[in-house]
Amino acid sequence: MKAEMIAVGTELLLGQIVNTNAQYLSQQLAMLGIDVYYQTVVGDNPNRIKDVIQTAGSRADVVLLTGGLGPTMDDLTKDVLAEMLGRQLVIHEPSMRNIEKLFKDSNAHRVESNRRQANWIEGSDALDNEAGLAVGNALMHEGTAYILLPGPPKEMKPMFEHKVIPWLERNVLHERQSLYTRMLKFAGIGESLLENKLLDLIQAQTDLTIAPYAKEGEVLIRLATKSDDAAAAEAKLNHMEAVIRERLNEHIFATADVSLEQVIVEQMSALGLKLAVAESCTGGLLSELITSVPGSSAMFHGGIISYSNALKHQLLGVPWETLEGENAPGAVSAETAKAMADGLMKLMDTDIAVSITGVAGPGQSERKPAGLVYIGIAERGKETVTEELKLNGNREMVRLRSAKKLLHRIWMRLQERKQQV
Amino acid sequence: MKAEMIAVGTELLLGQIVNTNAQYLSQQLAMLGIDVYYQTVVGDNPNRIKDVIQTAGSRADVVLLTGGLGPTMDDLTKDVLAEMLGRQLVIHEPSMRNIEKLFKDSNAHRVESNRRQANWIEGSDALDNEAGLAVGNALMHEGTAYILLPGPPKEMKPMFEHKVIPWLERNVLHERQSLYTRMLKFAGIGESLLENKLLDLIQAQTDLTIAPYAKEGEVLIRLATKSDDAAAAEAKLNHMEAVIRERLNEHIFATADVSLEQVIVEQMSALGLKLAVAESCTGGLLSELITSVPGSSAMFHGGIISYSNALKHQLLGVPWETLEGENAPGAVSAETAKAMADGLMKLMDTDIAVSITGVAGPGQSERKPAGLVYIGIAERGKETVTEELKLNGNREMVRLRSAKKLLHRIWMRLQERKQQV
Repeated sequence: MKAEMIAVGTELLLGQIVNTNAQYLSQQLAMLGIDVYYQTVVGDNPNRIKDVIQTAGSRADVVLLTGGLGPTMDDLTKDVLAEMLGRQLVIHEPSMRNIEKLFKDSNAHRVESNRRQANWIEGSDALDNEAGLAVGNALMHEGTAYILLPGPPKEMKPMFEHKVIPWLERNVLHERQSLYTRMLKFAGIGESLLENKLLDLIQAQTDLTIAPYAKEGEVLIRLATKSDDAAAAEAKLNHMEAVIRERLNEHIFATADVSLEQVIVEQMSALGLKLAVAESCTGGLLSELITSVPGSSAMFHGGIISYSNALKHQLLGVPWETLEGENAPGAVSAETAKAMADGLMKLMDTDIAVSITGVAGPGQSERKPAGLVYIGIAERGKETVTEELKLNGNREMVRLRSAKKLLHRIWMRLQERKQQV
Repeated sequence: MKAEMIAVGTELLLGQIVNTNAQYLSQQLAMLGIDVYYQTVVGDNPNRIKDVIQTAGSRADVVLLTGGLGPTMDDLTKDVLAEMLGRQLVIHEPSMRNIEKLFKDSNAHRVESNRRQANWIEGSDALDNEAGLAVGNALMHEGTAYILLPGPPKEMKPMFEHKVIPWLERNVLHERQSLYTRMLKFAGIGESLLENKLLDLIQAQTDLTIAPYAKEGEVLIRLATKSDDAAAAEAKLNHMEAVIRERLNEHIFATADVSLEQVIVEQMSALGLKLAVAESCTGGLLSELITSVPGSSAMFHGGIISYSNALKHQLLGVPWETLEGENAPGAVSAETAKAMADGLMKLMDTDIAVSITGVAGPGQSERKPAGLVYIGIAERGKETVTEELKLNGNREMVRLRSAKKLLHRIWMRLQERKQQV
């Protein structure tokens, strides 16, 4: 079952709005087991709208159009499709009565153009609009389903969920298989290396697909399989997850779409543990990531952004002879990362105290290149450890990767604790 | 001049990510005076990629492709385009050396597949990737420009701004009427209010366009005019800027694409001033914004993320009777914001000390709703002031708006200082 999406609207081509409808509808169709092959955006131009509808109709089973159902002269979707299919465009009387009633109720000045929003392609199924005026349309034509939805997400989404899904189930989906998926989220490993470790599985995939994606310092894998049998599909997904875990378990922090920092906030809160952070090169980013999670106040004690050497000494007690002087290790060193974590542990009443110091770039020195970062972890009752990182990318990427790497190390500590319990 | 955009990636068709690249590139092309006629999304399938490139090439002057330049087997964009155009795909040696160098430096396990990211269509212009591995390509073929960009926005945006715009100017845009633009960046004012204040100008615009945009807690206006006469165009832009400044000068912090934090870092560095930050609800975001600016170490002393009341008391000396107790003002109050700023001033050797405390949400109490935030500014030799903010939006927006509001207040202080000099 192949679907295509067409969004109509010059405002999309000018970049005034983002086409979030495409994401929403793609997710919905994926859940229904319908494959989306193309998404297209076209402006409010009748010839170009006609072109893209014809192309889509020639290759897809389902064509979903959003936008261009409004009251103004450049809202053309219904007009174009009706003409293309050789059908009449008429007023849908129940929708027109609804529009008249709404305008009467609100005492607003009804403009003649709002009549256009009750337009309906003869012989199609009208899709009521719960949240706006324009009526949607759905019809079958020469074996292809055409579905017309309003552009505003707050009108489109309820129409899709309450009207289009039942319509698809009646008219298109009655013989399909369901799609079963699972997400595995990874930290502390790059996309290339991950794929390399799973290359034999990816190459051998048949009815279970294995797709890796990277975003913002994290990597995820999506497993998907189509089946008539829910139990068999789950068993297949379980088996593949087990095979992947055998190779990469220490990197899999979630099987749902949650961030590493969310998982850490949840696990530390559940364990009753407190975290404190001392940041130099990340300048607040690590704390910001953690506190972006609602409920983080249960586990996040606080942080020190010891950007200057003076603060590293004053608040965290890093010795001057570590920080400065010709033969000193310097602010970017394992010694400083350790002293920061230990100093933070003393300063704050916390269970885990972590530190980051490094060169985010673009400035650097011969001894300390951009991307050189040291992280430290102090934990009550354990020896403080440090780690040297050599990271790629610009200032922003070095900062993000440092923070994510340290989060992964915190997460690994939490797994050790859980195993000990 | 007609352009089309093609985004390659099955993750877009599955709805796992939103195609924000289309919006960004559409805005950029609009600013260059290039009209976008279509945006298409296609999956990682060579035949379908070929189809959409052929269609786009047959009707557009500029075809921009994003995505599919990664290291994995399903990254196919360069392969397909090279084959279509009958050109060789070879290793771009400077990019390969760069990849080898990066992997050598980081001691990471270089996998053979990363070689693919140095692939280059023979005879094209290589576009360096400042923020990642995959090299971009740009070439003219039978009168159409093909530009290949990486999918991750972090890599794509700098490549577009630093490499593609100059390339387009050399190869495609040289004969058109020149476009003269000016950007005015605003802080401390929302997009609606701004637009309202300039509504008469926006409605009366003819050959000089006035376009407001909002992004990430800042608002900008772009003035643009096409002309053969540089001096006349500049005079027109100067006049409009003067008219706008008459109404809104205290909100205009820049006339170029720089962030408010960049301006503050520059101005404080030039004035030899130091800043310290005490954050509660923003949890490190304000410090992160400031330290994201290269060179911020010249003016940023450091910060305290006093997330818990214990830390507000211990490090910043906020009295317990202010923080807790039935009749206490509480952690989210003007009193606490003032005590945090004053305490920070005492703790750190700095010129300006600022504080933020508030309810970012979604959690809230009857007395303290989400969006209620207090900011404080202490400045050497001046009285400490606080301000109550009532902000809209979710947790992320409340945090960002708080931080940006405080940055605007710091910027206003710096303007006062500059006037006094």
